[in-house]
Amino acid sequence: MKIGVIGGGQLGRMLALAGTPLGMNFAFLDPAPDACAQALGEHIRADYGDQAHLRQLADEVDLVTFEFESVPAETVAFLSQFVPVYPSAEALRIARDRWFEKSMFKDLGIPTPDFADIQSQADLDAAVASIGLPAVMKTRTLGYDGKGQKVLRKPEDVTGAFAELGSVPCILEGFVPFTGEVSLVAVRARDGATRFYPLVHNRHDSGVLALSIASTDHPLQALAEDYVGRVLTKLDYVGVLAFEFFEVDGGLKANEIAPRVHNSGHWTIEGAECSQFENHLRAVAGLPLGSTAKIGESAILNFIGVVPPVEQVIAIDDCRLHHYGKAFKAGRKVGHATLRCADRATLDKQIAVVEALIAKA
Amino acid sequence: MKIGVIGGGQLGRMLALAGTPLGMNFAFLDPAPDACAQALGEHIRADYGDQAHLRQLADEVDLVTFEFESVPAETVAFLSQFVPVYPSAEALRIARDRWFEKSMFKDLGIPTPDFADIQSQADLDAAVASIGLPAVMKTRTLGYDGKGQKVLRKPEDVTGAFAELGSVPCILEGFVPFTGEVSLVAVRARDGATRFYPLVHNRHDSGVLALSIASTDHPLQALAEDYVGRVLTKLDYVGVLAFEFFEVDGGLKANEIAPRVHNSGHWTIEGAECSQFENHLRAVAGLPLGSTAKIGESAILNFIGVVPPVEQVIAIDDCRLHHYGKAFKAGRKVGHATLRCADRATLDKQIAVVEALIAKA
Repeated sequence: MKIGVIGGGQLGRMLALAGTPLGMNFAFLDPAPDACAQALGEHIRADYGDQAHLRQLADEVDLVTFEFESVPAETVAFLSQFVPVYPSAEALRIARDRWFEKSMFKDLGIPTPDFADIQSQADLDAAVASIGLPAVMKTRTLGYDGKGQKVLRKPEDVTGAFAELGSVPCILEGFVPFTGEVSLVAVRARDGATRFYPLVHNRHDSGVLALSIASTDHPLQALAEDYVGRVLTKLDYVGVLAFEFFEVDGGLKANEIAPRVHNSGHWTIEGAECSQFENHLRAVAGLPLGSTAKIGESAILNFIGVVPPVEQVIAIDDCRLHHYGKAFKAGRKVGHATLRCADRATLDKQIAVVEALIAKA
Repeated sequence: MKIGVIGGGQLGRMLALAGTPLGMNFAFLDPAPDACAQALGEHIRADYGDQAHLRQLADEVDLVTFEFESVPAETVAFLSQFVPVYPSAEALRIARDRWFEKSMFKDLGIPTPDFADIQSQADLDAAVASIGLPAVMKTRTLGYDGKGQKVLRKPEDVTGAFAELGSVPCILEGFVPFTGEVSLVAVRARDGATRFYPLVHNRHDSGVLALSIASTDHPLQALAEDYVGRVLTKLDYVGVLAFEFFEVDGGLKANEIAPRVHNSGHWTIEGAECSQFENHLRAVAGLPLGSTAKIGESAILNFIGVVPPVEQVIAIDDCRLHHYGKAFKAGRKVGHATLRCADRATLDKQIAVVEALIAKA
């Protein structure tokens, strides 16, 4: 079976590493000449709107999936004429746009911060009057890793903020005094079978995920599964979906979904019976899902900008390196380390060891 | 770092799957147009004696290693002029030839079946008179998976046997009434650091490995490590080496070594902290070795000739599929399944499940 992937970054790369042992082959459509997934499959170098190359991809593969959600709707619609596409155009339409996403949460009774659609500075002023400060303004589409957003703390921050974010459609979200950030990675098969990985505690530095720790018997696991299950059913979703929540007052408020394999699920490569990457491929390919059970205690730490010296990373006990083969550049995710330990105390100790190495790099 | 691999079969493929997350790239030199490792790196399609293409490989990579031992000595010598080659030409010279191999065991005080060099039918007749029947006659080079050998049980089997095996240099080995077959996979770094995986129990069907089960606290582990350590030191070996033994009278008799990653070590992908493939790459690249500790109880079962339906293999609990992406052909290793279970009773039960699937395929 040959799988087409829109995007050829590290997520595509890890999909191919998981799918090759299942006998799958891969083609990646990505405009970047140095797309790092190309080491593991065919690279169709083309823009996401290039219909000739999209058609070539569709002709070559059995199905198409995505490694990022900001794919133009027209791309998905075009591909869907020729080849099965998972997750669906509708799932991508919702997940791509924070307004649609938040509105869906509200419709499904999933708690989420107050939010308002912002099409102008006047909309923003009115929303701030209603929601209050502090608040976070985010572009409706194309934001990631803290890009395309601005925290509004004082009235002066509001003045001109719409223009500052590019005068594009935005949403305003009420600031949530959260005590923690967690994510739930779920997978749903074509036949509706659904599995959930354990909740993951996330720590972001400057808007970029720095550390994810898989939880054990988290008291909010069942609640999170309920919320995520509502979204999966609503979207008749196929594949892996990641759902980020704020922990607030012992409950959960929905932040956002990603209709794809997710950075906070990378620990599953070593730390779960079947990784998020293999389970995504199983789901889209119509194969039975694999176990999402945890093995030991796991965490991942991202390498941002630079991968520390390989010989130092792999010399750390319980540590596995994932080097994405990308050029080093400030702020760019270029690799991660997974720690898998027998117990949580060891895990915490080893996290500190990797953090010290990152601080030196 | 770019690694050149002589041979582009499943071992090369699994090396690349292990090395890519370390940031390594791969080039495979293999004459086969459908070499299955090519999905994961550059494929230099050329004969092993093609100096122009060997030179191209040497120029492109940082070092060269092997996925099989029957590489012509001239190939290794030629490459060694331009690029580091691990394991060494000397290690390959010994491992490639059963006479050199057995003679080394004898020199190192490692018990091995009686053996004799056979250059003619007269040599064979004399050796049979001395060693007795039953005995096994094997070509000195190029034999694998039970090919290039003949069991001699009765005097009639001896008549004409030298011509039958092609009138090429052979050895005669005394038949060993063994109670079991075990192998030890070891890895030695450039600096001499050495690690051993747990002994593995092997079952061959018609000369081809069918089942390998990793042992726990095997009483012969220390003895096997002693024997293998002697060979590693003698050869100043760098990389993974597999050593096959017969279990005889509560002790070990050396059968053969393979100067490479080995089928009986495939369970380490899921069942050990660091797989034989990653450890081989760490060793040849001059990186620190990874832990050879076992996780749970593991076994592998080979798929010979055909991979059972993917959806049936991956639906089995605790089972991971490794599909080599090779055309199905009788007698050919085309994939394997790894079972990793919490305890041995579960493992034995799941082995029976996979065996039933193989019997149906």
